[in-house]
Amino acid sequence: MSYSIGVDLGGTNLRIAAVDEQGHLLEKITLGTRLALGRDQVINDMCEAIRGLEATYQGRASLQGIGVGVAGIIDMRKGMLRESPNLPGWADYPVRAEIEKRLGTQVVLENDANCAALGEKWLGAGREVDDMAMLTLGTGVGGGIVLGGRIWHGMTGMAGEFGHMTIEPDGVPCKCGGRGCLEQYASATAVMRMAREKIDAGAAPGLARAASSDPEFSAKTVYKLAIQGDGVAQHVFSLVGSALGIALATMVNGLNLPMYVIGGGVSGAWEAFSPSMFRELRERSMVYAATAPADMAGDQGGLAKVESGTGTRTIITRALLGSDAGLYGAARVAMMGGGW
Amino acid sequence: MSYSIGVDLGGTNLRIAAVDEQGHLLEKITLGTRLALGRDQVINDMCEAIRGLEATYQGRASLQGIGVGVAGIIDMRKGMLRESPNLPGWADYPVRAEIEKRLGTQVVLENDANCAALGEKWLGAGREVDDMAMLTLGTGVGGGIVLGGRIWHGMTGMAGEFGHMTIEPDGVPCKCGGRGCLEQYASATAVMRMAREKIDAGAAPGLARAASSDPEFSAKTVYKLAIQGDGVAQHVFSLVGSALGIALATMVNGLNLPMYVIGGGVSGAWEAFSPSMFRELRERSMVYAATAPADMAGDQGGLAKVESGTGTRTIITRALLGSDAGLYGAARVAMMGGGW
Repeated sequence: MSYSIGVDLGGTNLRIAAVDEQGHLLEKITLGTRLALGRDQVINDMCEAIRGLEATYQGRASLQGIGVGVAGIIDMRKGMLRESPNLPGWADYPVRAEIEKRLGTQVVLENDANCAALGEKWLGAGREVDDMAMLTLGTGVGGGIVLGGRIWHGMTGMAGEFGHMTIEPDGVPCKCGGRGCLEQYASATAVMRMAREKIDAGAAPGLARAASSDPEFSAKTVYKLAIQGDGVAQHVFSLVGSALGIALATMVNGLNLPMYVIGGGVSGAWEAFSPSMFRELRERSMVYAATAPADMAGDQGGLAKVESGTGTRTIITRALLGSDAGLYGAARVAMMGGGW
Repeated sequence: MSYSIGVDLGGTNLRIAAVDEQGHLLEKITLGTRLALGRDQVINDMCEAIRGLEATYQGRASLQGIGVGVAGIIDMRKGMLRESPNLPGWADYPVRAEIEKRLGTQVVLENDANCAALGEKWLGAGREVDDMAMLTLGTGVGGGIVLGGRIWHGMTGMAGEFGHMTIEPDGVPCKCGGRGCLEQYASATAVMRMAREKIDAGAAPGLARAASSDPEFSAKTVYKLAIQGDGVAQHVFSLVGSALGIALATMVNGLNLPMYVIGGGVSGAWEAFSPSMFRELRERSMVYAATAPADMAGDQGGLAKVESGTGTRTIITRALLGSDAGLYGAARVAMMGGGW
């Protein structure tokens, strides 16, 4: 048996998993990311866990490689983060070299949303297609493209940054330097901003009650209110859906892929945002209109069955692997030798 | 010697060229597209010209193939137009089959902007790169993607429709069904619309004078006024540039290609629109900011020299082949056997 190790280095959690070549999870370790103790400590924690897994499987399985997924713009040639929203202060830190120095072996550093896309391609929603794109709706919005079964990196490894597509030219300023980016309308952060704005305007009694009584008031709370019939909460998610529809229309018109997968925590609110998403997409993309599933399964259930082998329908669907997509993808990246 | 025949079937002109495998133009025939006489007549005109070229080179060179570029959304499997802005009434017409029936040989039907992109890759601005995208700014705005030296068709041959990216969600309605598409801000039609709006508002004395005195008042006239210092004409082109910058930012963030080429008639106004284009692009694309040419040659001259072999800089540049790009590309498509 052979296996590889995937790492998901997030701003809150640090997860390390051993995955075999069929995609079975052998073992998963979840740690807190101890950012306050400094970059070296976080890397030490990661490498210690990796060495622990290596020791466990020593003699029983051969290690094919180690893949590390991390949020941010990565310069793949240098193995460094160019922008790192979740890991402040890491931009000048040679992440890949520091890991390799401690482990004495090569590792692949990869954008976390690219990992998630590859994970869904390998074991999730994209199993039946060769080409797909994915949007990951979390604290921010990430994206990844898979072409011919491999991550499409572009020239320097920075492709797939769909979270920073302009949706509203004069819209909400984004930390990327732009304005009106998709991330400002379709992330959990955006859901909370829109909810707070409604509360502050005195126009959302239901949201205001929830915000003052629930110490864990979050995007998920807003979603729960939306499915319970709260009109303001529903409106917030219709704005999320419209922004996604505009983004998908541009992606479908530009790339004409057979599948676009929506994942990340906010994708759990599919029921609340997908009607406006599909409405906007149909209106804005003649390529989608010409290739949408005849039975509108994608529009309705969100878990459309892919007609294997036909390849003339555009499927927009939910991710299947939840928060593990990136972890599986990081392991897969290592099996594929980086692919870049 | 071997050669192929490329056709550019436009709404006004029908051009047919014989091109050898090195890209030398052997002969070019320019006809009017006699749309009023019906689809069959236009196809007959085309096939007669093709047979004429075949007869000329018979025995001297071997014909490798015939490629036909046409504006619109093409279903490549069926060889039919799904949307045909310049050829009204052709959407249910089996274009490829009708040509093949007359010639008794296979032909490749290809989107005209895809042909232009491949032409520029082969003999123009993109000679030194394997991957590039192109925007063609004409009556409408077309687009094409070349990956690994071949046109990226996507699933059904409809990829590259960048002209219908949303730039302004509540913007000018587009005939595609969407609103605020790039085509509504960066085509010759858009330049004329914006100029007329300024004239109608009584806010453009220079443009009004030109419009009433010049029977051939066009986007080119607006450009000439802009470089002569007319503030309103300059403003119109700064809006063209902003729209292009927004579109390019999304393309650069999403695809991370080494080169984006701007062609078509309106690209002749580069001097007038490129400053706002680059300003908007830098502000909105962190991928561009991280990969822009250090000397800003691309920003300034528009005809940046590509540093061959380095491949870490994003070049935005003007097309080099003018209106022949699509014709060369159609011939090239045929040499490559369609590639789909």
